Amino acid sequence: MSRRRLLGTASAAGAGGLVLGAAGGAWGHATAQDEPPTALTSLGSTGVAFHGTHQAGIVTPAQAHGHLVAFDLVSGAGRRQAAALLRRWSDAARRMMAGEPPSGGERDTGIALDAGPSSLTVTFGFGRTFFTRTGMKKELPRQLAPLPDFSADALDKERSDGDLWVQIGADDALVAFHALRALQREAAGAARVRWQMSGFNRSPGATDRPRTVRNLMGQVDGSNNPKTTDDDFAERVFVPSSGEPSWMAGGSFVVQRRIRMLLDSWDEHALGEQERVIGRRKSDGAPLSGGHEHTAPDLDKRGKDGLPVIAADAHVRVAAPETNGGAAMLRRSFSFHDGFGDGGAPDAGLLFLAWQADPLRGFVPVQRKLDRGDALSDFLRHEASGLFAVPGGPARGEYVGQRLLEG
Amino acid sequence: MSRRRLLGTASAAGAGGLVLGAAGGAWGHATAQDEPPTALTSLGSTGVAFHGTHQAGIVTPAQAHGHLVAFDLVSGAGRRQAAALLRRWSDAARRMMAGEPPSGGERDTGIALDAGPSSLTVTFGFGRTFFTRTGMKKELPRQLAPLPDFSADALDKERSDGDLWVQIGADDALVAFHALRALQREAAGAARVRWQMSGFNRSPGATDRPRTVRNLMGQVDGSNNPKTTDDDFAERVFVPSSGEPSWMAGGSFVVQRRIRMLLDSWDEHALGEQERVIGRRKSDGAPLSGGHEHTAPDLDKRGKDGLPVIAADAHVRVAAPETNGGAAMLRRSFSFHDGFGDGGAPDAGLLFLAWQADPLRGFVPVQRKLDRGDALSDFLRHEASGLFAVPGGPARGEYVGQRLLEG
Repeated sequence: MSRRRLLGTASAAGAGGLVLGAAGGAWGHATAQDEPPTALTSLGSTGVAFHGTHQAGIVTPAQAHGHLVAFDLVSGAGRRQAAALLRRWSDAARRMMAGEPPSGGERDTGIALDAGPSSLTVTFGFGRTFFTRTGMKKELPRQLAPLPDFSADALDKERSDGDLWVQIGADDALVAFHALRALQREAAGAARVRWQMSGFNRSPGATDRPRTVRNLMGQVDGSNNPKTTDDDFAERVFVPSSGEPSWMAGGSFVVQRRIRMLLDSWDEHALGEQERVIGRRKSDGAPLSGGHEHTAPDLDKRGKDGLPVIAADAHVRVAAPETNGGAAMLRRSFSFHDGFGDGGAPDAGLLFLAWQADPLRGFVPVQRKLDRGDALSDFLRHEASGLFAVPGGPARGEYVGQRLLEG
Repeated sequence: MSRRRLLGTASAAGAGGLVLGAAGGAWGHATAQDEPPTALTSLGSTGVAFHGTHQAGIVTPAQAHGHLVAFDLVSGAGRRQAAALLRRWSDAARRMMAGEPPSGGERDTGIALDAGPSSLTVTFGFGRTFFTRTGMKKELPRQLAPLPDFSADALDKERSDGDLWVQIGADDALVAFHALRALQREAAGAARVRWQMSGFNRSPGATDRPRTVRNLMGQVDGSNNPKTTDDDFAERVFVPSSGEPSWMAGGSFVVQRRIRMLLDSWDEHALGEQERVIGRRKSDGAPLSGGHEHTAPDLDKRGKDGLPVIAADAHVRVAAPETNGGAAMLRRSFSFHDGFGDGGAPDAGLLFLAWQADPLRGFVPVQRKLDRGDALSDFLRHEASGLFAVPGGPARGEYVGQRLLEG
């Protein structure tokens, strides 16, 4: 069971820890457990802990449904209003992640009334503009320096950036929409939606094969992700407790890119051509140099024709950590499909999300290299971009961002 | 387990019958069974039969993900091209519903390669314009007469009607997108997408309460649906074998409405006001006259103040079959959310789908009455509309619509 495996990994990481209880609203007094659920009958009753060293939704297994939203503070709202908003949001997130209505419930929409927490996570971040708007430029992390321009970028500014960023994930669409709507309502008077995107991943139980999820090109995507069991995982993904700025201890920086896939073009290429572009077999994700999905690609291997089995411009070669000075990031993306455009081309692709302790040792060097030499670039268009500082997880009684806003 | 209950109902109906097998692509030689699955670990391996008296996707329990798509024949395509398309589509649907790639697989996108059938259903229908485009006006069913105008309508013609209609449902989003994309590609040269809408319902396992699914107003929606065990269920929903036109035997007529919910307004109303508008309690869907969700509303009951407990304009009263000359339809809808509009109002609501043997004894009289006197109308806007003839299910070796196209 791939699901069980994933949950086990998350538990092992000791972050975003899973807690289980009875299904539905009776969930209330759940306790943290190390054991992952043994059957998917517990889908609704699976809860993720709100408090912890790191925020939930980073090493938590990617859920079936995701909403990404940016909010801008309304004119006149500053540090005080932002602090009050983060306090309200944190309270609502904590309650909903436990399967309870937000804010006591009198004004609750009721959309998720029958459902359990369904692995809901809510993750909050701050964009570069937040620090100028609130007069807190001194606290602006150097890691939020604007991303460089890439040649393949065709960015829509209105769907990029933002003062505040929220990631919602859940294994039930009603639970996810309920959370989105509740947070929007809590923001009234303080912040308004700047942009919002929705995505999806494989449903728990849709497969019993222990394989990384596929993207809309049909390719297994994320095989070479850092593992929570790697010695250097925390160092790569999270800001250390001694890091700068100090309010970011236990936090992470997330890069979000709306990557449109040019599927009409991609789907016309024969299987062998697609596999040459990626450097992996489509059927099982194994590198073309042999083995299985998690076998390391042998970049030096040559075929009978003397040419490298994994081509010079194959995606796995250009993106490989060993060709990028060890740069690595944790990818935790959602696929998206927003209908069809003119001529019937699907507006579909990947809501790419990359987590790292420092974008200059993660996304930036990798994307620079992909931008120059990746055969896959011909089939992708980066349409929106964001970079956000996601602070560490809250201690009990604390709200997310408190160390920044009351520091 | 509500899921188990739902599956049991569908099996009892003997239509869109469920077939189970091993998970994933090994599904191949599944056999029909009466027993519903006992655990959700079989989510991916649950398959729905393609052949039968009725097409799948009508009495099949509503899946977590749905795509509704209309296609228009391209200029120059007539009856012959339409027949070839329906043959290709039927072949692809049959294969994908069994968890196999469409059309042998060489050109398959691979998006669903690891997943099982995940309760995939594909349902095909014909719109009024299909019969003029193909020179088959003689075969146009009288039931496809244009729907009357309703005062609450604000219909977008470009997202209404269409020559051909396809409903895709699955419990996994990748399986649903894979089917959508495969059918679009099979249509190339014969038909192009006119409009496409996506929706969702509760995930299997998100709740263990035996309660009808909620809509985005938070209300339990569909409690009073006809049941497959009702004596007159088939008569209300399906065209009888002696019915007209003869190629529609075992078929049904579907009305689709994109109903925007004015959630900003709705959510500002207090719980008691919302319940008065609906005539049911929000918490559990019980009628305000008492009992539980499936207790028949007592429309005559009066409170201590002498007034009817269920108000004169309450939705349940105006929609009740006993106030509509027995008119009834099987509702099998999906919720939708397509982002936020100007001012932050969610573009969200219900992709309402109503199935009946004759719209003049189903949707039309009920909607006429709702249009005049339903308190709920203030919070809804009908933005798109379609009416389609959905022929009976194919026998083995037959394609959907063959009795029309080769009749």
